[in-house]
Amino acid sequence: MSYREYRNCIDACLECVDVCNHCASSCLKEQNVGHMTRCIQLDLECAAICYATAQLMSLGSQYARQLCSLCATICRECADECRMHHNDHCRECAEICMECADECTRMLEQ
Amino acid sequence: MSYREYRNCIDACLECVDVCNHCASSCLKEQNVGHMTRCIQLDLECAAICYATAQLMSLGSQYARQLCSLCATICRECADECRMHHNDHCRECAEICMECADECTRMLEQ
Amino acid sequence: MSYREYRNCIDACLECVDVCNHCASSCLKEQNVGHMTRCIQLDLECAAICYATAQLMSLGSQYARQLCSLCATICRECADECRMHHNDHCRECAEICMECADECTRMLEQ
Amino acid sequence: MSYREYRNCIDACLECVDVCNHCASSCLKEQNVGHMTRCIQLDLECAAICYATAQLMSLGSQYARQLCSLCATICRECADECRMHHNDHCRECAEICMECADECTRMLEQ
Repeated sequence: MSYREYRNCIDACLECVDVCNHCASSCLKEQNVGHMTRCIQLDLECAAICYATAQLMSLGSQYARQLCSLCATICRECADECRMHHNDHCRECAEICMECADECTRMLEQ
Repeated sequence: MSYREYRNCIDACLECVDVCNHCASSCLKEQNVGHMTRCIQLDLECAAICYATAQLMSLGSQYARQLCSLCATICRECADECRMHHNDHCRECAEICMECADECTRMLEQ
Repeated sequence: MSYREYRNCIDACLECVDVCNHCASSCLKEQNVGHMTRCIQLDLECAAICYATAQLMSLGSQYARQLCSLCATICRECADECRMHHNDHCRECAEICMECADECTRMLEQ
Repeated sequence: MSYREYRNCIDACLECVDVCNHCASSCLKEQNVGHMTRCIQLDLECAAICYATAQLMSLGSQYARQLCSLCATICRECADECRMHHNDHCRECAEICMECADECTRMLEQ
């Protein structure tokens, strides 16, 4: 697969990195942080895998698609958790994580 | 400075990470790779600093602006090198690096 | 400065990345997570800057030393916060952050 | 699996990140860089996957082992390429990549 075909997925992964890091940091400022710990944990895992996936795609690695599969899984779990909270940063994070999961899944189908 | 104010700069940094990694990998496939070594080296340095800068901004770190200053410097040096080559990936990289340098400089002025 | 001279500092930065990420994740499991939020936040900032600093040193970048300066500052702030907590992961993190800060400062003196 | 059990593998991954980035940068300075392009490309892919794997382990992620599997594969391919070159940095990189692959494989067996 070419870089051009990867580009939407790279963009989705990098946006997801940003939004996950922002969500983690914002959750830490919430009064009920005790209820946000799983959200923060998954944000951090999701940011890590999304960045690596974006890197392998940007580098045109033949292993990029294998990472897309795990990335989609973690993005979906992070989205499922974020969806349960009503803060703006969690809602945005849930949405962007799902978009990223969808883009990663699309890579696997090609 | 708030996350909202950072957002353009975060986007610019993350696009720069992508384009620099793609440029490095593409330079490695050029026939005259011996002429591209400085470009590849700077691409890798630029990708590293841009990612860290984006992370600190996404996290809302008080140190983000200090990193923006170094990021702008490295982006400009990478752009200056890329501009000397005529491959599409180098030209695109030069352009995106300059946009990133400009966004980082804008952060410093606020 | 050569890679050989950098090596102790690279090792210190990478160990700091590991210990900061571990501390952040462990803090999230503490019952009094409400008291650990600044620790988690600084852990994440510290991990981000330490990784970028290690990368620029591994790549032999001329900008590595400039990043060492900011890295030492963030490591010290993270250590100061971690030192105030009595969990094993915070104590270890405080110690490793100080070692990293010292190694980064040593780079600046050469 | 606990952080304590992961620690050897985290150390191996982070050392591999360092050595791969150093090998890539050193290859760029070799006179016969035209023969080193596959080595540089795999160094960059290997550094990216090793860092993500270390991060997921440091964070105690349940997905860490799935990433260890892909990490071992890429480390082995990078080692196979590096082994074909006689520069010190390539020889060291081949050795450290194999150690990292072995540690990652050990994680899968537990």
